[in-house]
Amino acid sequence: MKKIGIVMGSDSDLPVIEKAIHYLQQSGVEFTVNVFSAHRTPDEAINFARTAKENGYGVIIAAAGMAAHLAGVLAANTLLPVIGIPCTSKNLDGMDALLSTVQMPPGIPVATVAIDGAKNAAILACQILAVNDDQIAKTLRDQREADTRNVLAKNLTISTTYLTH
Amino acid sequence: MKKIGIVMGSDSDLPVIEKAIHYLQQSGVEFTVNVFSAHRTPDEAINFARTAKENGYGVIIAAAGMAAHLAGVLAANTLLPVIGIPCTSKNLDGMDALLSTVQMPPGIPVATVAIDGAKNAAILACQILAVNDDQIAKTLRDQREADTRNVLAKNLTISTTYLTH
Amino acid sequence: MKKIGIVMGSDSDLPVIEKAIHYLQQSGVEFTVNVFSAHRTPDEAINFARTAKENGYGVIIAAAGMAAHLAGVLAANTLLPVIGIPCTSKNLDGMDALLSTVQMPPGIPVATVAIDGAKNAAILACQILAVNDDQIAKTLRDQREADTRNVLAKNLTISTTYLTH
Amino acid sequence: MKKIGIVMGSDSDLPVIEKAIHYLQQSGVEFTVNVFSAHRTPDEAINFARTAKENGYGVIIAAAGMAAHLAGVLAANTLLPVIGIPCTSKNLDGMDALLSTVQMPPGIPVATVAIDGAKNAAILACQILAVNDDQIAKTLRDQREADTRNVLAKNLTISTTYLTH
Amino acid sequence: MKKIGIVMGSDSDLPVIEKAIHYLQQSGVEFTVNVFSAHRTPDEAINFARTAKENGYGVIIAAAGMAAHLAGVLAANTLLPVIGIPCTSKNLDGMDALLSTVQMPPGIPVATVAIDGAKNAAILACQILAVNDDQIAKTLRDQREADTRNVLAKNLTISTTYLTH
Amino acid sequence: MKKIGIVMGSDSDLPVIEKAIHYLQQSGVEFTVNVFSAHRTPDEAINFARTAKENGYGVIIAAAGMAAHLAGVLAANTLLPVIGIPCTSKNLDGMDALLSTVQMPPGIPVATVAIDGAKNAAILACQILAVNDDQIAKTLRDQREADTRNVLAKNLTISTTYLTH
Amino acid sequence: MKKIGIVMGSDSDLPVIEKAIHYLQQSGVEFTVNVFSAHRTPDEAINFARTAKENGYGVIIAAAGMAAHLAGVLAANTLLPVIGIPCTSKNLDGMDALLSTVQMPPGIPVATVAIDGAKNAAILACQILAVNDDQIAKTLRDQREADTRNVLAKNLTISTTYLTH
Amino acid sequence: MKKIGIVMGSDSDLPVIEKAIHYLQQSGVEFTVNVFSAHRTPDEAINFARTAKENGYGVIIAAAGMAAHLAGVLAANTLLPVIGIPCTSKNLDGMDALLSTVQMPPGIPVATVAIDGAKNAAILACQILAVNDDQIAKTLRDQREADTRNVLAKNLTISTTYLTH
Repeated sequence: MKKIGIVMGSDSDLPVIEKAIHYLQQSGVEFTVNVFSAHRTPDEAINFARTAKENGYGVIIAAAGMAAHLAGVLAANTLLPVIGIPCTSKNLDGMDALLSTVQMPPGIPVATVAIDGAKNAAILACQILAVNDDQIAKTLRDQREADTRNVLAKNLTISTTYLTH
Repeated sequence: MKKIGIVMGSDSDLPVIEKAIHYLQQSGVEFTVNVFSAHRTPDEAINFARTAKENGYGVIIAAAGMAAHLAGVLAANTLLPVIGIPCTSKNLDGMDALLSTVQMPPGIPVATVAIDGAKNAAILACQILAVNDDQIAKTLRDQREADTRNVLAKNLTISTTYLTH
Repeated sequence: MKKIGIVMGSDSDLPVIEKAIHYLQQSGVEFTVNVFSAHRTPDEAINFARTAKENGYGVIIAAAGMAAHLAGVLAANTLLPVIGIPCTSKNLDGMDALLSTVQMPPGIPVATVAIDGAKNAAILACQILAVNDDQIAKTLRDQREADTRNVLAKNLTISTTYLTH
Repeated sequence: MKKIGIVMGSDSDLPVIEKAIHYLQQSGVEFTVNVFSAHRTPDEAINFARTAKENGYGVIIAAAGMAAHLAGVLAANTLLPVIGIPCTSKNLDGMDALLSTVQMPPGIPVATVAIDGAKNAAILACQILAVNDDQIAKTLRDQREADTRNVLAKNLTISTTYLTH
Repeated sequence: MKKIGIVMGSDSDLPVIEKAIHYLQQSGVEFTVNVFSAHRTPDEAINFARTAKENGYGVIIAAAGMAAHLAGVLAANTLLPVIGIPCTSKNLDGMDALLSTVQMPPGIPVATVAIDGAKNAAILACQILAVNDDQIAKTLRDQREADTRNVLAKNLTISTTYLTH
Repeated sequence: MKKIGIVMGSDSDLPVIEKAIHYLQQSGVEFTVNVFSAHRTPDEAINFARTAKENGYGVIIAAAGMAAHLAGVLAANTLLPVIGIPCTSKNLDGMDALLSTVQMPPGIPVATVAIDGAKNAAILACQILAVNDDQIAKTLRDQREADTRNVLAKNLTISTTYLTH
Repeated sequence: MKKIGIVMGSDSDLPVIEKAIHYLQQSGVEFTVNVFSAHRTPDEAINFARTAKENGYGVIIAAAGMAAHLAGVLAANTLLPVIGIPCTSKNLDGMDALLSTVQMPPGIPVATVAIDGAKNAAILACQILAVNDDQIAKTLRDQREADTRNVLAKNLTISTTYLTH
Repeated sequence: MKKIGIVMGSDSDLPVIEKAIHYLQQSGVEFTVNVFSAHRTPDEAINFARTAKENGYGVIIAAAGMAAHLAGVLAANTLLPVIGIPCTSKNLDGMDALLSTVQMPPGIPVATVAIDGAKNAAILACQILAVNDDQIAKTLRDQREADTRNVLAKNLTISTTYLTH
């Protein structure tokens, strides 16, 4: 089974990333977590991307804020799909990170999810691996059905509450 | 080999989508092109998504403008990875489509590329299939190396031009 | 008398929606409240919209945040007027929800109110029913006149306060 | 049958409004068209709103650009539902008109449609009248089914085109 | 001496307006404070504007948030200069109020100051009256020179602090 | 009679400014036009502001684009009211000039009009002078009544056109 | 050795500026700190810029918020490189200061860093001095290598943590 | 004398860059021009930055559009000052490039100029070299004085034109 490589640009992104870690831990998919900065440790970031395929990775998730170059730098150095999580920082509500991540020029795509959307990044990574892995596909289906049941349960509570008023 | 399903929300998006079609035609990957609107043909859109896996698709690309719900609707009805292309329309430079596509709530990710980034959507779709397909991986590598040579050739011309001034 | 159907995309939107509920409770209009997600319970959302007219609804109010597709999905599956409330979430101050709700393509309108504007959604729903219901029209008029008196009372207090300084 | 009153803030908005006029002409709904400026003819605008109900109107559509106050001024002077069309002008792509129209304070809603979304304003006005008018409801259904067939026809053409390549 | 008329759209704007009141109290200029809503008390707002000149006002200051129409409504009903203060509300950081206030169409200007810029509105009102009133001009000059001395005193403290490090 | 001083930051702003010039020429108010750049001719800009009052000016209009500092620089060097016109340039639709002009810090107001709103700047300047000049007040009233008649004439044409359809 | 001159537009910017001061104190570069407002103390601001070179400065750092003109005013009065720090204030998340600082017209550049990016302003100032100063260059290199080691240490901790789960 | 290295991310940026080239040609400063993409030729871009100092460069100018990572990548691999020019592309008016360039995280500054501000990038590069080079300083002064004279000449023409009307 292919691994998922999570890379964050700064350890300050860890609270966001934990939602991805939590999802993957429940999914039984193998993954690693690293802190590599596109700017402060460019060699390590590039090296991670260049060796990712041979090291058994199938997908890379990159999380960064502000002028978020990490996902783009990784994508420029591997042919594996790279998922980008734009992270909020002190100002601009993550709009800077969103545009820096999603607006990649032709040739080097980054699969961008919502601002701080770490859980969706994890799900998307599983979906990519599930294209050829029925076990992960089954886990995804179970998870989504649980989500659906969860919404329906809340609907039951709330719709009943206001019915009686 | 898994197919790539391209869906656009309106035939007015075809000029954008043609960059994806062109790339896929050169890549030798199998793909189909459909026009399904999340709003005007919801049944057909949903049905496409629900049957996509059994019909041999591995990835779906969805392109739409304005309040671009198409990618989200497809993603809500399949577990395959769905790539979203936010398309520009008359106003707002595509910012409405970008936010409608990328800001998906937890549980249903859409892998969003740049505004009008159809070529990158095609490359990303190939990258996803290439996780388990060495032939596509090789095509991607060839394409990227050609891109690199292209930039270097331009560099040679331009750097020489201004060297002589 | 026709009912008003309130649907929210997540129970986290309930604090916003309560302003609509409160207004409708005071107005004596019949209404129901449901939690249906455009993405996690698409079947239930669509079914609600498709059966709304025959179930006695005259207007639907839909509240959702982020890439807020709920109002659009409901509007695509009914001919009843659908009012959309864009809800703020953690980032972007509701701008993502606003554009996802209001920028509907030609053919499927959503009557959008202000970000988190649940009270106005309730008033607008009553205005729509009041087109053919003099009782609701009278309630609306009373409510608005009370609003006017309220502003005038505050004006009296404040204008007097600063007159004496 | 109740009439629809279209009001535009300036005759320069007529090209946008013509999409609404065209839709209503095909729908057989009675409507009038006026040019009243919230700022340059406030008396006439206010008088139109205050007498609209007694003059047989059921819904008002207001179109304006820049600091678009027209819909709000009309809504403040009638209890009929008022639909606002934010119009683009030379700068800012209509974002100024959108926020000026949709961000109404509690008490006075404006049912806002997309920037320059005149056709949707007309449809929404018909949907409001159709709550109690089966003839208009039928026209709306026919129109929407025609839209659906139109998309499906384009799908057939385009999906076949790229199937043969 | 001409009076300054301060009008706020809601008593919730009072904390912002107090900075203007405080400045005017120190300046010895005559002023009044009112709460008139463009939407909930349009008659009173319009009447205030139409009678302002004959009632001895020389300038009007209008403060409002969201789709801030108040300044525009007043300006449409008087030829006195109207100063607009866009106020922040819960969302969008006051950008909605700014655009609703400043982007007035040709013919009806609003002299817009910064978001929540009540003190500057008061100064600007005094500057307008000071065009023909040497006493107010002197007060303005004194105030500005005090501001300058205040900055220079802070400069002395801070520049010395870091000189010794 | 006090003069109006128009200053533009670059002669490329002249096409915008001509709308102000045209209005003032028709109004019979005395005015001058200068090109002073806050950045390239700071001495001349500051000198103009500092001597404006003694040179007979009553109001200053400043037009500039991009990081539009001109109005602020003039306002910092005079106590006369300064009206700012944010001008569009190649990018950002004038939003940079708007924020650079309107968001002045406490102490130094700039009376900001709409992006490229030169005609309104001229009207506002006349309104300021008219506070103590009945002749200008009369001209303003005539101009506004002509505007009103103009809208009403267009209303007559358009409302009749669509009445007959 | 050339000095670095830090100027802030208001002492309220000091908490931001302290990150620059802290960096420079560790770097052993000579610097001064002043509070000069472009608007309230224009003479002192201009005089500082005009005499900066002869007073031994090599670079100027200017920090200001809102319509942040300070960096531009300094740059217009010196040929030394001027670094601008756009500071956040109560509203708009610093976007007003960013555009007011970075969008300088041709002829007068301001070297703009991130919103509230005081530490980077200090580093950039050192980089400029280091072009001809090997001692500062060495300090910069040491600092950057420390940053790199810091990231690698965090990577070791975090990658190990999640390896064991 | 140190050289200036201009790098653009794509040859499509050449029309923008030509304004920088033109300025440098007139200034007599030595410079080179290269096309290196942060994403398509990462090795060449990094290598250029790492060897820039030993190859005689004193400053680097980097121009790129969309998710503009080029300046950041170069800055991460050299201690020379790096100037970033955010370039407009098809959508978003260069806002994506601006935020991707200016919002660099602490540790790695990019000296950002205006969107498409190539001339200012060239001037800023000269200013940096001029800190220790009196010849370049003199050229800069001459150039700025010519700019000033140019504005004053235009002022003379325009102020005279409107004086005679």
